[in-house]
Amino acid sequence: VSVTYPAGFRAAGITAGFKRSGRSDFALLTGDAGTTAAGLFTTNLVQAAPVRLSRERLRAGRAGAVIVNSGQANAATGEQGDRDARAATLVAADHLRVDPDVVLQCSTGVIGEPLPMDALLGALPALVSALSPDGGPDFARAILTTDTVPKEATADGDGIRVGGAAKGVGMISPNLATMLVFVTTDAAVERTGLQRLAEEQLKPRFNALTVDGCTSTNDTVLLFASGAAVEREVLTGTRAWDGLAAAIGEVGESLVRQLIADGEGVGHVLLIEVAGARSDTDADRIAKAVADSPLVKTAAFGGDPNPGRILQAVGSSGVQVEPGAVDVALGDTAVVEGGTIPPAYFAGDGLADAARRAMGGPEIHVRISVGGGAGTGRAIGGDLSYDYVRINGEYTT
Amino acid sequence: VSVTYPAGFRAAGITAGFKRSGRSDFALLTGDAGTTAAGLFTTNLVQAAPVRLSRERLRAGRAGAVIVNSGQANAATGEQGDRDARAATLVAADHLRVDPDVVLQCSTGVIGEPLPMDALLGALPALVSALSPDGGPDFARAILTTDTVPKEATADGDGIRVGGAAKGVGMISPNLATMLVFVTTDAAVERTGLQRLAEEQLKPRFNALTVDGCTSTNDTVLLFASGAAVEREVLTGTRAWDGLAAAIGEVGESLVRQLIADGEGVGHVLLIEVAGARSDTDADRIAKAVADSPLVKTAAFGGDPNPGRILQAVGSSGVQVEPGAVDVALGDTAVVEGGTIPPAYFAGDGLADAARRAMGGPEIHVRISVGGGAGTGRAIGGDLSYDYVRINGEYTT
Repeated sequence: VSVTYPAGFRAAGITAGFKRSGRSDFALLTGDAGTTAAGLFTTNLVQAAPVRLSRERLRAGRAGAVIVNSGQANAATGEQGDRDARAATLVAADHLRVDPDVVLQCSTGVIGEPLPMDALLGALPALVSALSPDGGPDFARAILTTDTVPKEATADGDGIRVGGAAKGVGMISPNLATMLVFVTTDAAVERTGLQRLAEEQLKPRFNALTVDGCTSTNDTVLLFASGAAVEREVLTGTRAWDGLAAAIGEVGESLVRQLIADGEGVGHVLLIEVAGARSDTDADRIAKAVADSPLVKTAAFGGDPNPGRILQAVGSSGVQVEPGAVDVALGDTAVVEGGTIPPAYFAGDGLADAARRAMGGPEIHVRISVGGGAGTGRAIGGDLSYDYVRINGEYTT
Repeated sequence: VSVTYPAGFRAAGITAGFKRSGRSDFALLTGDAGTTAAGLFTTNLVQAAPVRLSRERLRAGRAGAVIVNSGQANAATGEQGDRDARAATLVAADHLRVDPDVVLQCSTGVIGEPLPMDALLGALPALVSALSPDGGPDFARAILTTDTVPKEATADGDGIRVGGAAKGVGMISPNLATMLVFVTTDAAVERTGLQRLAEEQLKPRFNALTVDGCTSTNDTVLLFASGAAVEREVLTGTRAWDGLAAAIGEVGESLVRQLIADGEGVGHVLLIEVAGARSDTDADRIAKAVADSPLVKTAAFGGDPNPGRILQAVGSSGVQVEPGAVDVALGDTAVVEGGTIPPAYFAGDGLADAARRAMGGPEIHVRISVGGGAGTGRAIGGDLSYDYVRINGEYTT
């Protein structure tokens, strides 16, 4: 049910022919009149045309629908890319009988290849006709590229519902861009409040995710609120707000876990938690450096603890830390204490075995303390496997 | 002949038993009385004990010899590590009948494991006895860890000679730390001049090198000048200086090429050149971001041009660039012009084929222009292959 779990939304997913595989590749989500929207976008300076367009429309304050095409990223396509994105949304708005500037667009697929506008414009009437309050699953399937499974999540608050769908297996998968996330709620939230919920509940969760340290040109997270469930607007500082925030966070967390589990070649999920940093930003940066280190990622693949590699990543993260204050635990096993690997680790007394067991599971918990600061952060990553190299190396256009 | 090519140096390499393989693992290089030295050290905040010791002694201005042990990195070993490094150099100085503070130390091997001091101190007399003006090759072999071949280089200036040896296959290879580089000359250069030659001729070359983006706890580059070839000191601004600088640069360049060619799992060398940036620092950072991108590295492994991946890396390097000003060429083939991938690339008219040929060779030249600035930079990296994952993932302690 995903994005249509909350009341006030309709969705669809059809085959327009963008993908050579013949699988569904054109999706539409639309909210009832009065729907508000908020968004988060890639920090890559190279941004796809649909990112520029959606960002601009959200800034202007109006958005209640989004079309998603899967197959072409419409990135590095120059002015033609901007014209195509604009035309696609204008024609979609016309079919939907809504104002021309309320339709957003997300694109995912090959970078540089122009949008196949004939196929896209030709398929729009069928896409709009397919809209249904039960269209969530079709939507979730049609946004996929090399994902092996759809990612859907739902959560309930006090009288409100939250739903979501996502796609993405690498920040750029084989020549295909993008993580796209769509979260909906039938709560009534005005625009700035909704943006705050996106920043507080979704941004930290999706920013913690890293498959390969690469930032796509198309990454987009959209949050829509239809207001269909309740008559009163949800205001900050109320219990209703807290309940809605928790439900949105729950959907976001579930989608993040599903994304990393389906990440390219990922067999072991790395959960890195950092504490004791001078700021949350510093802690996040350290966590990301560890999660992105090829040496830590291959160690996770091999099931070998290798505490020296984790120390190496902490020390070269760019954050000022005192090496003698660094502690590292794998699961419940301390493998670095005060910057030093305990001599027992090399003495074969069971410490290394315990660390190896913690490194061998499907989820590897790495807890790092870098001092007495209040800053905490985390990153969610995966191992670096033969399959990652195969997927990204053997793929040829 | 490597480090003993210039006059005024003796070297040795013997088996002390640090490595389980039984290969030679203990090396010594010493210059005649009056030898000056300069050094460059890892920027990782987590620094091995021998790095701290060597840096301190060089700062104090006296250094004419270095012992190198291969098998244990003496990093993350706490105060015991500092005591061990100090003891090793004091005893070496005693055997060499030199002042106690002129002996430096480099260590490479497992992080966290203590130095085997019994074996080390026991082997020192034999190591000193083995010193020979022809000991360069033995030295070059004994410093290796998982390197498959020794790295040696020589160059001639006007009446002077330069020699060098290096080791390192990953910034940290399977649980083994370090790139170590030793360059010698028989020119006479006072200490600050020698440090300037190291900064100008060696630093940019070795900083451009990246196997996996990981910075070791032990990286060290040492430059020694014996003065044995000429009576007069080489002064800055003279033709002798320029000739010496060129010879040092030639040895450095050769060692860099040998290091990347022997890098873990490297089958294709990536040569990234960036121009048009606002500063050399910016250009270097962009070049390194492209050379370290797992998606660019796997594309190089697969021989697939994937210009979108290069753009992605440029846009997320952290350097402010104008995406519309980015040009990218693979070999002689333009694959991005003004931020746009030419539509011809997808039209099957030969552009993609030419790019694929440029991406398939043993050396892949990527030239990136990011605007009209004067900043230039470069990075030398390698592809990401199954072998990299095997070497770093299947290795278990």
